Amino acid sequence: MAKRMGTNTLITDTFPSVAGYAAVASKKEGEGPLGRELDVVCEDSYFGEKTWEKAESRMQKDAVSKAIAKANIAVSELDYIFAGDLLNQCIATTYGLRDMGTSFLGLYGACSTMAQSLGMAALFVDTGMAGKAAAVTSSHFCSAERQFRFPLEYGGVRTPTSQWTVTGSGAAVVAPSDEAPYIKAVHFGKITDMGITDINNMGAAMAPAAAKTLEDFFSDTETTPDDYDLIVTGDLGIIGRDLLRELMQRDGITLGKNYTDCGLLVYDRTEQKVESGGSGCGCSAITLCSYIMNRIKSGELREVLFVATGALMSPTSQQQGESIPAIAHLVYLSNNKNAVKGS
Amino acid sequence: MAKRMGTNTLITDTFPSVAGYAAVASKKEGEGPLGRELDVVCEDSYFGEKTWEKAESRMQKDAVSKAIAKANIAVSELDYIFAGDLLNQCIATTYGLRDMGTSFLGLYGACSTMAQSLGMAALFVDTGMAGKAAAVTSSHFCSAERQFRFPLEYGGVRTPTSQWTVTGSGAAVVAPSDEAPYIKAVHFGKITDMGITDINNMGAAMAPAAAKTLEDFFSDTETTPDDYDLIVTGDLGIIGRDLLRELMQRDGITLGKNYTDCGLLVYDRTEQKVESGGSGCGCSAITLCSYIMNRIKSGELREVLFVATGALMSPTSQQQGESIPAIAHLVYLSNNKNAVKGS
Repeated sequence: MAKRMGTNTLITDTFPSVAGYAAVASKKEGEGPLGRELDVVCEDSYFGEKTWEKAESRMQKDAVSKAIAKANIAVSELDYIFAGDLLNQCIATTYGLRDMGTSFLGLYGACSTMAQSLGMAALFVDTGMAGKAAAVTSSHFCSAERQFRFPLEYGGVRTPTSQWTVTGSGAAVVAPSDEAPYIKAVHFGKITDMGITDINNMGAAMAPAAAKTLEDFFSDTETTPDDYDLIVTGDLGIIGRDLLRELMQRDGITLGKNYTDCGLLVYDRTEQKVESGGSGCGCSAITLCSYIMNRIKSGELREVLFVATGALMSPTSQQQGESIPAIAHLVYLSNNKNAVKGS
Repeated sequence: MAKRMGTNTLITDTFPSVAGYAAVASKKEGEGPLGRELDVVCEDSYFGEKTWEKAESRMQKDAVSKAIAKANIAVSELDYIFAGDLLNQCIATTYGLRDMGTSFLGLYGACSTMAQSLGMAALFVDTGMAGKAAAVTSSHFCSAERQFRFPLEYGGVRTPTSQWTVTGSGAAVVAPSDEAPYIKAVHFGKITDMGITDINNMGAAMAPAAAKTLEDFFSDTETTPDDYDLIVTGDLGIIGRDLLRELMQRDGITLGKNYTDCGLLVYDRTEQKVESGGSGCGCSAITLCSYIMNRIKSGELREVLFVATGALMSPTSQQQGESIPAIAHLVYLSNNKNAVKGS
């Protein structure tokens, strides 16, 4: 049974494994630094479907299928699937997973969904509520642009603070096993709102939430950034990343060279013209479910804090003059079963 | 630790209590059969705010505050809050709860959210992952109409199969305690899609999901409808209710007089002109968090199955010609701590 440490950090008792994981993405992601590590790269942004929304559903379905196959289990062995996405009413998820026949728990954490869903899956397996559980999320540049910003045909100019929504889906299957990556702890965050209203600067809106979650986690576990090989946020981009460093420095915590952001790993910022970096639920999902998990599996990375952030606004709240509340959820992944410091 | 029974029913080990609950609603709900049992009835559909979306956020905030006060705890004692709503990106929830300072887990289960959130809160408390946790959801007739159907000013004619979105929010605080209502079991459902495309007939789209969840639960626990004083679905309305009876009868299970639907309890269908009945996340939320909980507390009801259903579509999926996937989540509430049959 998961043990509570400090305020709200949950240390898993059994260190459940990520038994299988997969990343599905499109052309631009395939051309980026992660290209060769992705399981599927589809040149067609429609993924053979008629609309971008259906394409996004298709990516989720394919990511889950791949992750299940890599975990070497049948879909019928999954007890629960935790999932969500950015589209109104989370339709990428509900249509993508409707034929799976698995108990379904829909989540809405915006771009924090990969951490939220993986954390939930890990806790369900750890407490024995599930034998095996999956986590999945996605985003699609085209479906996100037309829902949150402008029709693509309009060709709106992008600000330097803007980020590029990743077209991709990442999925992970959690199960008891003796193979890394192991999930050692989960910390679900609190909503933070510093009054930022610029929807073209999501990194700045989300950085305070990441700071809050990381600081609470370090305090709960009595650890410091130096205890980890990699601390990686979800999609703060370069502006949010620098702001996070600054915010935490102000509180006396130095994020060193072991800190980076999935929005900077997923694209080559200068070559691929993505302004401040990648974003969207798919950004942290495909980076975690390829590059990061691969390195934990191989032992190149030992102790990893994955902190996905989400901006909890909508076009309606923005039109009504509201600021942008944000949240960050943390999952502590490891390549070993050594006890968590202090637990 | 919650025990698994059958396929996916989770029997709680400690039977956590609903230590406090509250229902906040507006004029029409106040005039309905539940009127005198609601905690707050606000005549102004704006709840003193500038927009309907902000009004909905306000309702959630007020419902949680009332539930906490009735549980006789401070907000700082809440470890987690599980919540969601129908608005795009769940903004009623995120703006309503952003100042609470509690670890937040956003859910999207459409109108099944009251059962999903209450089930999650119960399991977190039961497994010791949370000391105390809250569940909340809401809907607002005006914010839902303009998002899902037409601008109110358009005055669209309603079909006889249509339902009336409840303006209301229900919240519950779960904690270990020796006072009823107790939560004895949780069953999270599977997505069901029978190919229905008529968005003015949500009851018909959701009835198969309710049938699936109830049948799986009865099979898992080896019980029958006769073992319960009340079986209540979330917002099937009269058409969905009759269809559910028919679907289950076909499978040899008779839902008797102990079965009804929150959409029929919340309004006086003929007097209040709501066509097939009430709907929306708020429908099952305010009915559960007033009428039903009150009767479990008083002992008038002993064993209750609360089954909230959700239609997992969006206006975009509907415009793209898609059918309506649905889900139903179940929470088994009781006035006593007697062991669950067969567990």
